Amino acid sequence: MIIVLKSGTPSEEIERVSTEMCTWGLTPEKIVGKHKVVIGLVGETAELDPLRIQEISPWIEHVLRVEQPFKRASREYRHGEPSEVVVPTPNGEVIFGEGHDVVVVAGPCSVENESMIIETAQRVKAAGAKFLRGGAYKPRTSPYAFQGHGESALDLLAAAKAKTGLGIITEVMDAADLEKIAEVADVLQIGARNMQNFSLLKRVGAQPKPVLLKRGMSATIEEWLMAAEYILAAGNPNVILCERGIRTFDREYTRNTLDLAAIPVLRKLTHLPIMIDPSHGTGWAEFVPAMAKAAVAAGADALMIEVHPNPAKALSDGAQSLTPDQFDELMQVLQRPLVSLSR
Amino acid sequence: MIIVLKSGTPSEEIERVSTEMCTWGLTPEKIVGKHKVVIGLVGETAELDPLRIQEISPWIEHVLRVEQPFKRASREYRHGEPSEVVVPTPNGEVIFGEGHDVVVVAGPCSVENESMIIETAQRVKAAGAKFLRGGAYKPRTSPYAFQGHGESALDLLAAAKAKTGLGIITEVMDAADLEKIAEVADVLQIGARNMQNFSLLKRVGAQPKPVLLKRGMSATIEEWLMAAEYILAAGNPNVILCERGIRTFDREYTRNTLDLAAIPVLRKLTHLPIMIDPSHGTGWAEFVPAMAKAAVAAGADALMIEVHPNPAKALSDGAQSLTPDQFDELMQVLQRPLVSLSR
Amino acid sequence: MIIVLKSGTPSEEIERVSTEMCTWGLTPEKIVGKHKVVIGLVGETAELDPLRIQEISPWIEHVLRVEQPFKRASREYRHGEPSEVVVPTPNGEVIFGEGHDVVVVAGPCSVENESMIIETAQRVKAAGAKFLRGGAYKPRTSPYAFQGHGESALDLLAAAKAKTGLGIITEVMDAADLEKIAEVADVLQIGARNMQNFSLLKRVGAQPKPVLLKRGMSATIEEWLMAAEYILAAGNPNVILCERGIRTFDREYTRNTLDLAAIPVLRKLTHLPIMIDPSHGTGWAEFVPAMAKAAVAAGADALMIEVHPNPAKALSDGAQSLTPDQFDELMQVLQRPLVSLSR
Amino acid sequence: MIIVLKSGTPSEEIERVSTEMCTWGLTPEKIVGKHKVVIGLVGETAELDPLRIQEISPWIEHVLRVEQPFKRASREYRHGEPSEVVVPTPNGEVIFGEGHDVVVVAGPCSVENESMIIETAQRVKAAGAKFLRGGAYKPRTSPYAFQGHGESALDLLAAAKAKTGLGIITEVMDAADLEKIAEVADVLQIGARNMQNFSLLKRVGAQPKPVLLKRGMSATIEEWLMAAEYILAAGNPNVILCERGIRTFDREYTRNTLDLAAIPVLRKLTHLPIMIDPSHGTGWAEFVPAMAKAAVAAGADALMIEVHPNPAKALSDGAQSLTPDQFDELMQVLQRPLVSLSR
Repeated sequence: MIIVLKSGTPSEEIERVSTEMCTWGLTPEKIVGKHKVVIGLVGETAELDPLRIQEISPWIEHVLRVEQPFKRASREYRHGEPSEVVVPTPNGEVIFGEGHDVVVVAGPCSVENESMIIETAQRVKAAGAKFLRGGAYKPRTSPYAFQGHGESALDLLAAAKAKTGLGIITEVMDAADLEKIAEVADVLQIGARNMQNFSLLKRVGAQPKPVLLKRGMSATIEEWLMAAEYILAAGNPNVILCERGIRTFDREYTRNTLDLAAIPVLRKLTHLPIMIDPSHGTGWAEFVPAMAKAAVAAGADALMIEVHPNPAKALSDGAQSLTPDQFDELMQVLQRPLVSLSR
Repeated sequence: MIIVLKSGTPSEEIERVSTEMCTWGLTPEKIVGKHKVVIGLVGETAELDPLRIQEISPWIEHVLRVEQPFKRASREYRHGEPSEVVVPTPNGEVIFGEGHDVVVVAGPCSVENESMIIETAQRVKAAGAKFLRGGAYKPRTSPYAFQGHGESALDLLAAAKAKTGLGIITEVMDAADLEKIAEVADVLQIGARNMQNFSLLKRVGAQPKPVLLKRGMSATIEEWLMAAEYILAAGNPNVILCERGIRTFDREYTRNTLDLAAIPVLRKLTHLPIMIDPSHGTGWAEFVPAMAKAAVAAGADALMIEVHPNPAKALSDGAQSLTPDQFDELMQVLQRPLVSLSR
Repeated sequence: MIIVLKSGTPSEEIERVSTEMCTWGLTPEKIVGKHKVVIGLVGETAELDPLRIQEISPWIEHVLRVEQPFKRASREYRHGEPSEVVVPTPNGEVIFGEGHDVVVVAGPCSVENESMIIETAQRVKAAGAKFLRGGAYKPRTSPYAFQGHGESALDLLAAAKAKTGLGIITEVMDAADLEKIAEVADVLQIGARNMQNFSLLKRVGAQPKPVLLKRGMSATIEEWLMAAEYILAAGNPNVILCERGIRTFDREYTRNTLDLAAIPVLRKLTHLPIMIDPSHGTGWAEFVPAMAKAAVAAGADALMIEVHPNPAKALSDGAQSLTPDQFDELMQVLQRPLVSLSR
Repeated sequence: MIIVLKSGTPSEEIERVSTEMCTWGLTPEKIVGKHKVVIGLVGETAELDPLRIQEISPWIEHVLRVEQPFKRASREYRHGEPSEVVVPTPNGEVIFGEGHDVVVVAGPCSVENESMIIETAQRVKAAGAKFLRGGAYKPRTSPYAFQGHGESALDLLAAAKAKTGLGIITEVMDAADLEKIAEVADVLQIGARNMQNFSLLKRVGAQPKPVLLKRGMSATIEEWLMAAEYILAAGNPNVILCERGIRTFDREYTRNTLDLAAIPVLRKLTHLPIMIDPSHGTGWAEFVPAMAKAAVAAGADALMIEVHPNPAKALSDGAQSLTPDQFDELMQVLQRPLVSLSR
């Protein structure tokens, strides 16, 4: 349920209404939008009569029920206004969100060694990326496959950050690693395989770093938003959703099916920023540029693109990585307006 | 297998090589590209030694095996060159193919009555569409649902064509209707449900009108190209492929999952033109503009968009139809360059 | 809508009620069950008040609305009673339906030559099969693959029938072949790829031979029953449903995913007999026995099993064919009670 | 790679070969089968020449490469012999494995209160179940849904165990809860959503309690076996695989698609015991008996069935729970031989 306040409502009145709501056993959350202030209410609201709430203050414009099962994640919860995830990086604040510039995150699947991560960081920064991605802890199908360099990879990410000023995004697979990862990372990634690892979601929801939540391989849009809701409900409002391809019957020429319609669907349902990962989404470097362009045209707020100095020798996911030169070229294309019907 | 001829090969020599190939039991097909002439060979080539063919003329540059199971549909068969489907319409020739302007096909799901189809045709023409779509024979899940007005709808399409000069695209469900449909239609549509109706594919392959082949709901890219191969093998080289969404586990907010990665994948595998249908692909009018933009950005050669003067009262598929005004607006957006990373 | 009549309703009264319903613009169909007579009504019943119908005769017990979109195919339409499909064969009538013995249909994917089809027919008959299956017209993904021997294969099926007295089941792909196929076949098969070839469904619905309707590769249960409804609505009440595996993300070790839960689901929803095809359902002969046993245990009314005298040399689908010896062994297992928890 | 030893190989020789293998940098594991002793070898074996190993002892019969990516989980690793998971319970040892009686695990989705869990335990024991299932920690799509009673539920499970002597199976979602769960549980369950929570797999692999590994919603058979390999590789050989339905396009009448062909497929690929969960597999109590019978007929080693004293009031998954009476009835059916072709 949300309480929409009239413009000009004095802050003491907002405070008073919130306090009152607490006494009703609800958890109020103040959302300051561009035009309005909204108080989001979570708790046992099913039986509540909106009119009873309306009566508690003349500054209340209306009281609306959030119909979606995902409450805090729903667009309605912010009365239609998109949210922004603002991430401080050494190079300055980066804002993820509708209407802002598309943020590009780039880097290798895994952090392999110092020279490769530094070189990649420098190249992707030069091309216009704002964040470096790179796995320290890697979820691998086989226990015998390279599992990431762990802590030492975190040091290398820290070094790359120091050298380039880029923000760092890296995956958390285990709550036990959370603290040391959070020392380096500016955004914590929850991978597709852990999208419904509810224990982990609660943990990243209870710490302050923004969270990049990848869509599970066969998660419906609703399940994905419910997973985001776990993080939001635990107190962390900074969630970025990342579509990375879903699993379908056709896996011959692409590794996954990139569900770009998720962009307008999410835009309608949620206020959260939307990222697209065409690298995992297709699984092949040669298909990444077309899908990156499509994602931007469809309205994505961010892109995550794998870049590796030598994809043929990558310890993981080489086939889907662009070379730094290919990434340069793609960024140049993406910085110019895209083609229209006339071509 | 294909025979690539040197530039300047005299036409009698091309003739001679083709005739020779016939005596070997193969079916040669001359493909005149921008730079080269290629002779495609279909038949029992598995055991053939390319070198033996090479020897039959000094004008042969090389002889290459087509590795794909789809031979005539493969990009290799034309030695990498895209094909064009040229369709004469009252308003002039329209060319579908890589590098040409994106062709827009628009109109209602079903032809309902004269005024609606004429009005729609005039509006979509004014907005920039080159073809009118409209179903006379409709494949409906229920035998009790509206099955299309059949022959009388064909007359209305003819009237709309006469009034506007637009080309006509309409679906063939039954070989028995082929002749009368072909009198009106400029392009024959094979619907998703009939993509592997091999009898029908052979029939449309044996007549001269271009064919729009929609992807089956759960057809792999390879199966789809093999279906195109049925048409090509029957003698009709004019096939346009249309992605219209595949069936996946997630059908809550979209009717199908629009597989836009099919665009770069097909571009690599085949020379045939590629159309995207975001209306069926998403099932909801509100998601059509984002997906239309994405399709163009990803490199589609054509778009098919449902437009209905009054979607709320449509006899079929109203939810996914744009109004003429919404279509106008979308066409204006698509005629300008699309957004880049900066927005 | 259905009219349930009281036991002992005189036949003139049944006639009178039916005639009355015709005058109301409805199509009545008399269904004689074990305990009751029911009159099924198809047409514009949405606005009809059941009570108004009730009033027309004191012999009417109640009038019930069929809530499912598939009317004649629904279990409700027969007031809960299963239907039987009775097929005359030279060896006598064979009954498909709930509560009757499980009917086994066996034979090769394609009819290849006289000796193989006769030999197979004799072996499967000896093992207990009641029907011989064998393709004369084959739907093949590639236009270059063996397409079936067509008419001459029909002659061979006729010869096998004459020799063994088995009933014949073979596929119709094209309405143009219907007549000549119906001369030989006792049951006409509609393949998975044509499940929504509505023109063909209407045609087989308008002729008298029973129809075996295979489930489409990605057809929902409801779409499948709606396809059956096309046949029933066209006047043919003898439809057998055959589950043959659906398409899912996992195709590494099986060709399709055999959806055995379709058995209890269909049992609840429809009165039509249910067949399972574990050969296409798994794609591998080694997995057929386990799935055949499971199908029988789950309540299937019939099994379709591919048998080939020399699977390694089969012109199509060899990998999923049992040898006659393997089929013998399976039939012996299936004729004994299956294992319980103690083993 | 595995070393198959001749019968009668002296144990010192087995020891010696194992020690030698350690010096080669490999991890040997002794597997005592019914007829043979096999030494499994894991490590960098790709470059190793089997003949070189053969030479180290005249007692070596042959040295074979395990071709599957899952090594320890593969059937080849035990030279074709199935493994057994032996679980001590107050009522005695229960053996899961091919050829042994089918083990039935039953109980509610969640442990709700003392009387319900005790009552359920008594009823399912009386009917023939050997294990009580019941969730203390529940993975729920919504953060606002009942999340299980946690620790207090563990106490109730302990009480039910004390009262009935049944073994206990309950889910671990978080490594932090592992110890306290292991105090009560005889088998630890890893749920579908955590099948690729590799951190958790490593943790349950490093403790001694047997593990029930549910298949992920969209996990291929190979990914599932690789997940089992994580547990085996961490040192725990006692893994039971549980199929619980996969996610497909058709979710109208069943919640998931129960992939019973997984039974013969797994039987071929792995030595591990196989359990089927028809409750989650179908999502509806009315379809459970048919699928339980099918699972047993197809060769399952164990069944997991949800039973709740009052499904209509269950805090979770009521729709798929049998009542104790329905469970009784099902167990009686399953204890008698199942129907054959004649019925």
